[in-house]
Amino acid sequence: MRYLLPAALILALGAGFAQSQGGSDKPAPVKARQGIMQNYAFSIGTLGGMAKGEVEYDAQAAQAAADRLVALSSLPQTGYWPEGTSSDDLEGVKALPAIWENMDDFTSGFDTLNEAAMAMADVASDGQQAVAGQMQPLGKSCGACHEDYQMSDD
Amino acid sequence: MRYLLPAALILALGAGFAQSQGGSDKPAPVKARQGIMQNYAFSIGTLGGMAKGEVEYDAQAAQAAADRLVALSSLPQTGYWPEGTSSDDLEGVKALPAIWENMDDFTSGFDTLNEAAMAMADVASDGQQAVAGQMQPLGKSCGACHEDYQMSDD
Repeated sequence: MRYLLPAALILALGAGFAQSQGGSDKPAPVKARQGIMQNYAFSIGTLGGMAKGEVEYDAQAAQAAADRLVALSSLPQTGYWPEGTSSDDLEGVKALPAIWENMDDFTSGFDTLNEAAMAMADVASDGQQAVAGQMQPLGKSCGACHEDYQMSDD
Repeated sequence: MRYLLPAALILALGAGFAQSQGGSDKPAPVKARQGIMQNYAFSIGTLGGMAKGEVEYDAQAAQAAADRLVALSSLPQTGYWPEGTSSDDLEGVKALPAIWENMDDFTSGFDTLNEAAMAMADVASDGQQAVAGQMQPLGKSCGACHEDYQMSDD
């Protein structure tokens, strides 16, 4: 019986899970992938702000943001995109049905992003101009995917 | 002027950022860290469901969930926890002020989680019982931190 979890632990895990799910009835994979997108936005926002001079350059913060982009774009996509979770299926979802029609192309976009993120991570500690110089390929890799696969707000 | 971003790209990045921020007025670092928590929940939920036999064991899904836990718990914490973003400061935030009083202890919790996640990743493809056998240390590493540093729903 060593494989069974103690009841208290199951409850604790269940409670933690339920807490984290609170406030929205979206399926867990949707919340998870949208949570990742928040983290892309956070890191891109940090780096973009520094590139534009709107946020004071900070080597440690820039490096952390770039390292996060590398890690996030390396995450396995398995499980994030179940059928029935497109913008046609769910409220508050911008993932276009085109994703499911072109899954290989869609997921290959994360490899492109990962390359751009690694190029940023290589120089993120080298100063504001180094960060600014890598924003274009990074932004392009974001934009390519958003254009094809994310519903716009227009 | 090669360091300046083209205006169109700045707009595109800004739009993407604004979209990802939509629907909540929480600060970006808070949304980002809560997004990570959604991903912990998603992976723990997948693995816990398989461990309990509520979800059919799937080696690829289990491995992806475990690999995600490893990657997420390795993320740099820099930037996620600015002052003024505790449960005392903001609505919809469960991060207790104790975090800021014990930042080193708090962040060391992610190292503990990372160790448990790596142990899970080592065996996640080996079957349902192997996953079940690693749930206890994994759940414990989650629970330890939630107990000290996250507001309960009671």
